[in-house]
Amino acid sequence: MDKAALVSRTNVRIRFSETDAMGIVWHGNYARFFEDGREAFGHEFGLDYMSVRNEGYTIPVVEMTCSYRKSLTFGEEITVVTGLVPCEAAKIQFEYAIYRASDNELMASGSTVQVFLDLEGQLQLVCPGFYQQWKRKWNII
Amino acid sequence: MDKAALVSRTNVRIRFSETDAMGIVWHGNYARFFEDGREAFGHEFGLDYMSVRNEGYTIPVVEMTCSYRKSLTFGEEITVVTGLVPCEAAKIQFEYAIYRASDNELMASGSTVQVFLDLEGQLQLVCPGFYQQWKRKWNII
Amino acid sequence: MDKAALVSRTNVRIRFSETDAMGIVWHGNYARFFEDGREAFGHEFGLDYMSVRNEGYTIPVVEMTCSYRKSLTFGEEITVVTGLVPCEAAKIQFEYAIYRASDNELMASGSTVQVFLDLEGQLQLVCPGFYQQWKRKWNII
Amino acid sequence: MDKAALVSRTNVRIRFSETDAMGIVWHGNYARFFEDGREAFGHEFGLDYMSVRNEGYTIPVVEMTCSYRKSLTFGEEITVVTGLVPCEAAKIQFEYAIYRASDNELMASGSTVQVFLDLEGQLQLVCPGFYQQWKRKWNII
Repeated sequence: MDKAALVSRTNVRIRFSETDAMGIVWHGNYARFFEDGREAFGHEFGLDYMSVRNEGYTIPVVEMTCSYRKSLTFGEEITVVTGLVPCEAAKIQFEYAIYRASDNELMASGSTVQVFLDLEGQLQLVCPGFYQQWKRKWNII
Repeated sequence: MDKAALVSRTNVRIRFSETDAMGIVWHGNYARFFEDGREAFGHEFGLDYMSVRNEGYTIPVVEMTCSYRKSLTFGEEITVVTGLVPCEAAKIQFEYAIYRASDNELMASGSTVQVFLDLEGQLQLVCPGFYQQWKRKWNII
Repeated sequence: MDKAALVSRTNVRIRFSETDAMGIVWHGNYARFFEDGREAFGHEFGLDYMSVRNEGYTIPVVEMTCSYRKSLTFGEEITVVTGLVPCEAAKIQFEYAIYRASDNELMASGSTVQVFLDLEGQLQLVCPGFYQQWKRKWNII
Repeated sequence: MDKAALVSRTNVRIRFSETDAMGIVWHGNYARFFEDGREAFGHEFGLDYMSVRNEGYTIPVVEMTCSYRKSLTFGEEITVVTGLVPCEAAKIQFEYAIYRASDNELMASGSTVQVFLDLEGQLQLVCPGFYQQWKRKWNII
């Protein structure tokens, strides 16, 4: 998280439906935890999905990576730490760290990149004005 | 399936991601198999989601029941049998039977009811014309 | 909820991943909300999945019904009310009501029936002792 | 796919439940398509989940990346191309390319790394014998 300019934390409880026949959380479900992290970040700093949409944009994920260190199991609670990585391009970059809440053990880490589409689905090559303003507000170069 | 006027069959392979920590398919995932059955029915008889949408309607599910008899596990293939139950109201009623493909054992059964909304989300109290025609075409009273 | 002997309430925030292309929560995902309700009930009254498993049983769902009244959308928060319906057979019956937290509007209702399997997967025709004791503790006939 | 030593192709139809409120396939669901690709590869070349398990190992995913180029929508069919990337360590590396079946347009690409655990969950630092044999059989150095 050393590159992150702003960081948010949120706790999530593992659902039974998120486990698989290996008895652990199915690896594809971590995308949900990252999304929980992004939404928590967005609510804390005013960059959630609905706020962005009200500005006339959607922000689909175009890159995702996840590195799994230890298995999560049903009944556990996790802390998702979500950090915004400064970037000059018309992109939003986050990095994530998932900790087991009970002992603060690092379970997984990852990253996403999102782009801006207008409501006709057109890719924005230049940062939308509202996002430039948002970055200035939070002192992100 | 004795009440069904039209019946369609489709095969589906269980995904690993559909299992849970009991080692069996998570019960909530059967809604996906019913949806697979509806879509196969729709493609066979011209009542799939996109066709209905092109007529200016969406058909959300407003009732669902599922009765689970035997557990499904990863690697198994199922046959979803989907039957349309005749009904005079502005509704689409299906019943479903899920068989294990390898030995034709009945694993689960269920039902759904769908209604018609126009594209403004308004509930249709009278059967849309296209659906009346569709029923006549297939001799469903 | 008039048949319920014990009732628990829990709040759940709708995830973006739970929506579908109609812009609403995909109907199959309500099984997750019911499961959230059961787990909250279980934690409140000592009948959660892990407690039951520690007694030597799993409790798979064998019946589920859901009745959808109004659509849920992303960003909403729901209150899941979960009530245990008394029953003499070796079964656990719950009924559920899902309210939109913002205005307490009833969005959906449903029910589940669970049975007891021992750890070899054998169906229990008689209520396990621990569950009899649990019912006595909470004054459920 | 230039690094891949063995390649398999399989077709998958997009489910309605896989879409989100943007009207496209939710990005987290691509993990399912990669898993479909791995299983198809496994069935073609004898390295599917159940075969590996019968040898006494599970092969959890420890790294995943996904790069999204174009959106997938409901009703589309995709071709998942799955290639095994040779590697000397006790790991299984795959790369994936997802094409829209109708016009062979590249929609997404990605990769996974899996490790070997024995049935006690112990990480294997040396390639299990069965996998060494499997690699020899298919002429993978």
